[in-house]
Amino acid sequence: MQNQQIVLSGRPNGMVKANDMALHSAPAPELHEGQLLVKNHFLSVDPAIRYWLNAGMTYIRGVDIGEPVRCFAAGEVVASRADGFFVGQWVTGLFGAQEYAISDGSGVVRCDPADGSLSLHLGVLGMPGMTAYFGLLDKGQPQAGEVVFVSGAAGVVGTTVGQIARLKGCRVIGSAGSDEKCRYLVEAGFDAAFNYKTEGTDAALKRLAPGGVHIYFDNVGGDTLDAALLNLARGARVVICGALSQYNESAYAGPKNYMKILTARGILTGLIVFDYALQWPTAVRELAGWLREGKVSTREVIEPGLKHFPDALVRLYQGGAFGKLLVAV
Amino acid sequence: MQNQQIVLSGRPNGMVKANDMALHSAPAPELHEGQLLVKNHFLSVDPAIRYWLNAGMTYIRGVDIGEPVRCFAAGEVVASRADGFFVGQWVTGLFGAQEYAISDGSGVVRCDPADGSLSLHLGVLGMPGMTAYFGLLDKGQPQAGEVVFVSGAAGVVGTTVGQIARLKGCRVIGSAGSDEKCRYLVEAGFDAAFNYKTEGTDAALKRLAPGGVHIYFDNVGGDTLDAALLNLARGARVVICGALSQYNESAYAGPKNYMKILTARGILTGLIVFDYALQWPTAVRELAGWLREGKVSTREVIEPGLKHFPDALVRLYQGGAFGKLLVAV
Repeated sequence: MQNQQIVLSGRPNGMVKANDMALHSAPAPELHEGQLLVKNHFLSVDPAIRYWLNAGMTYIRGVDIGEPVRCFAAGEVVASRADGFFVGQWVTGLFGAQEYAISDGSGVVRCDPADGSLSLHLGVLGMPGMTAYFGLLDKGQPQAGEVVFVSGAAGVVGTTVGQIARLKGCRVIGSAGSDEKCRYLVEAGFDAAFNYKTEGTDAALKRLAPGGVHIYFDNVGGDTLDAALLNLARGARVVICGALSQYNESAYAGPKNYMKILTARGILTGLIVFDYALQWPTAVRELAGWLREGKVSTREVIEPGLKHFPDALVRLYQGGAFGKLLVAV
Repeated sequence: MQNQQIVLSGRPNGMVKANDMALHSAPAPELHEGQLLVKNHFLSVDPAIRYWLNAGMTYIRGVDIGEPVRCFAAGEVVASRADGFFVGQWVTGLFGAQEYAISDGSGVVRCDPADGSLSLHLGVLGMPGMTAYFGLLDKGQPQAGEVVFVSGAAGVVGTTVGQIARLKGCRVIGSAGSDEKCRYLVEAGFDAAFNYKTEGTDAALKRLAPGGVHIYFDNVGGDTLDAALLNLARGARVVICGALSQYNESAYAGPKNYMKILTARGILTGLIVFDYALQWPTAVRELAGWLREGKVSTREVIEPGLKHFPDALVRLYQGGAFGKLLVAV
């Protein structure tokens, strides 16, 4: 049996390109005691993937040349010699951009089909949803009546943050890179959304949040972070989730307005979602409930075919897709 | 009666120069109901003064051209038509670089001669001491056994931070810009000090704090802040106090390694010392006790004569003085 893979063929320099990756066929991996074999159905196309492609500048090891591109995937167990896993079970994990993955079960999340369809377990019910949930609720500590600003808001993390913030009684402002995305955000329940390509973030925040921003949930870094720092309300929490604008840069632009954190009597903090692993099941159940009740909605874009993974990753950074971007294997 | 003043004669562009300021003689101010007249004995030469000389980029109004340079001063009340102030009383406040100041009493601190000499009330018993005390103890929350790194450590804030951290059972590392300052820091009780001009901060921290820094007390910003971010221990607190390396720059260099705050599961926060005004008397008493017991020590450099204020301010940024720099009026 052969295993089709998308492997890293060259170390990306700056913006990732489709030909930094290549389709490769390898023998299907052999199952040893204590392992499970997963057939991937969906690959998750996430901003963090670009970060993992850098050599040695990350909180987990960078992807090696020739290795399948690291990504989250959702699939079913097709063989198991590991305790606690059974054939037919739905699982997600860092299975990589390939048809079949071997795992020793570490980091593997068991999914309950009752919570939602398999692909949702990579989005609003998976790592992005957990990032939104714990980043906003634990790090951001939203209080009713506060103003929450989310950048990169049309991504699944951003949209989920905004929708949870609304549930907590906050006024929610989102930024995104097209008018179409902004319309989507308002339909999804945001109080306001602006297209940062046609209105500067600083001007938009002064217009939409004249009293300042209490929580800034930062998915992008760069100029947007700097503009948000100019518009903090007293006691603001800046929650750093990602730096989408910076992952393709060799050195990050630091927030030159960081002293505004002092004058706002605020804090800057961040989120490593894996720290909340033990609390995921509770959070998934709560999010699944909100989904069923229509209080949280989500948008999936599913590209058909493993070979489209490189193009999908490039498109993610070009801002051409929004919602949750997936590749069906 | 004439009032000698050092006024702002031109808006500084980049590094402040002595001729951005001028000696000026004005009529002594007239005392109205509700006011007190203070004769300044000592002017405090502080890093923040440069920040106040910028137009409109500060948490308090910038100093206008022709206005006395804003600074803290210590003096005695020579006339009072205000409740709660009496002739002969020791006071400190933002009295400015001049012989005589009128005040309505707002922001004026009454000093107890029993706590220490008048000049100390501008240093270890004044705003710098309070900045060290609350920045370290409230924002930093030091725990015994933790590693504390202080930059700009030979200034009165830095030295006091280090000495209080030692009292709390921390291991304390300081950086400063000369070997002489480093020797002073070790004499003052620091576990280690390094000259950042001869050893890079990143290398020094890897040598002196291989397990990482739990509290970074940042007086300087810039490259030092970036190097400290590379060396955070898990759960680290980065306490931004000042940005001495940046005050003379038109735009601040942001900390390009800010994402390290996430991976360290840390926070970045800062301190506005005026927020603790109600708690100052208690803190002054505790610091005065530590001074008497020899647990905290301090170094004063006193320049004689109001006219030397501009040179003293320039020297502060050139790193030529250390300890608490004062001008005797």
